[in-house]
Amino acid sequence: MKERKKIAIVGVGLIGGSLAIQLHEKKLSSRLIGVEADPDHAAQALALELVDEILPLDQAVEQAEVIVLAIPVDAMLSLLPAVLDRVDQQIVLDLGSTKSQLVAAIKDHPKRGRFVATHPMWGTEYSGPAAAVRGAYENKAVILCNTDQTDADALEWVRHMFEKIGMRQLEMEAVAHDLHAAYVSHISHITSFALANTVLEKEKEENAIFELASAGFESTVRLAKSNPAMWVPIFLQNKDNVLDVLNEHIEQLKKFRDSIRDDQSDVLKGLITEANKIRRIIK
Amino acid sequence: MKERKKIAIVGVGLIGGSLAIQLHEKKLSSRLIGVEADPDHAAQALALELVDEILPLDQAVEQAEVIVLAIPVDAMLSLLPAVLDRVDQQIVLDLGSTKSQLVAAIKDHPKRGRFVATHPMWGTEYSGPAAAVRGAYENKAVILCNTDQTDADALEWVRHMFEKIGMRQLEMEAVAHDLHAAYVSHISHITSFALANTVLEKEKEENAIFELASAGFESTVRLAKSNPAMWVPIFLQNKDNVLDVLNEHIEQLKKFRDSIRDDQSDVLKGLITEANKIRRIIK
Repeated sequence: MKERKKIAIVGVGLIGGSLAIQLHEKKLSSRLIGVEADPDHAAQALALELVDEILPLDQAVEQAEVIVLAIPVDAMLSLLPAVLDRVDQQIVLDLGSTKSQLVAAIKDHPKRGRFVATHPMWGTEYSGPAAAVRGAYENKAVILCNTDQTDADALEWVRHMFEKIGMRQLEMEAVAHDLHAAYVSHISHITSFALANTVLEKEKEENAIFELASAGFESTVRLAKSNPAMWVPIFLQNKDNVLDVLNEHIEQLKKFRDSIRDDQSDVLKGLITEANKIRRIIK
Repeated sequence: MKERKKIAIVGVGLIGGSLAIQLHEKKLSSRLIGVEADPDHAAQALALELVDEILPLDQAVEQAEVIVLAIPVDAMLSLLPAVLDRVDQQIVLDLGSTKSQLVAAIKDHPKRGRFVATHPMWGTEYSGPAAAVRGAYENKAVILCNTDQTDADALEWVRHMFEKIGMRQLEMEAVAHDLHAAYVSHISHITSFALANTVLEKEKEENAIFELASAGFESTVRLAKSNPAMWVPIFLQNKDNVLDVLNEHIEQLKKFRDSIRDDQSDVLKGLITEANKIRRIIK
């Protein structure tokens, strides 16, 4: 396998910055080039030594052997074809949370084979280079999508990279990925955002929330701190699946509401006992 | 202040068991009597040395100087008056999650003054004696309700106990307590139960959830493991407040749904930006 140690990270925020730390620590990179549209984030990424230098996209694509795209999924849709226009034998991979529209957008691109669609199942509610975390991704799952459309050498290198980082690799078609991502990630964020808005709307006494909020509340509402620039395009790109799960979630909440309203303690107990089955899945 | 070191814990589960550990470690007790309806839990509580002995309720009330009630709030409603019927100068306190019905139920009891209504804002999604945690309650808030109805010596001892455990004490009327508890605790549990049911209903491939579930999903759905025996009576006793917050939550979810359905990215961004304000409250 050809050694590729000059790596460009496009978008040096939470996701890209955390990968940069891993690439360096696992000796996967000898030189890390950052591409960053936000000048403050660019300066922070250098100050935090997440990358060795910041370059414009053109120069980064030209000089790097691997180009990692870690930007919001709306920007990704336009940037990926533009990057592929400029690559020769480099490898391009993305770390985004939606896949169907992205792989459709470059399906017939002459350089399609240089691209690997990936989604590492890790993130936090924070954003920007200062949010980058050492040891992120380790022991987490990563999904590789539509790998039959990728050149063998590109797939091999990316698989090697995730293996060195310590991720469990799964393969999935983009359409299946977006469905499962709606269930296990996107809906949690909507629930949490909506819960924050509920409590902020109903509870005018912020002091009371502050004093009383327990670990349970914090845990449920934590994701509500997540960045709209990242999440708005995810929800819109995965619209059909998200709407499907969200409508089901509203129906489930109505079952709780109706059984509480009608004092049906047996029904309520049944709903909670059913929910407890999540123990089989979440330790 | 009169020293009271013979303490009975009625219900030696997550809540009562965790308090038992604290009472012992902070030298607040010299003898801990457990009262426990479930024989398995009684045996576990002894094996784990949470209490020194298990006694029937009558004997425990007679021998103890302080009686702590840590049972589901439906059982609490009938047990508290029965315990007060038997006390002389002992102190009785509860640790339950709802307060309005409870203080109303014993409002005119001749021994009302011996009772202190408290709600320590701590818990986990687990239950039973084996779930008891060392160091629980420390640096958390505890709410004391309707303290003007409590004898001065009883209030003084309970305040001293919570101070030694390291809890921040707040006073609140029972009605206000139940309102705030609906916002910051009860609704989080309903959201989490309903989210678990949504995902279990929609996602037939449990392996996919298992493999893909990220820390964000786990955090949001964690409370769904909570015990129905504890939570059904909480929701029903706090029905009006819970329904009020739950209806608002459904409305908030519909705002997300409608803006996604109609591709209104600006509205969606506004909703998320609003939700981000929870940062002011939750660090």
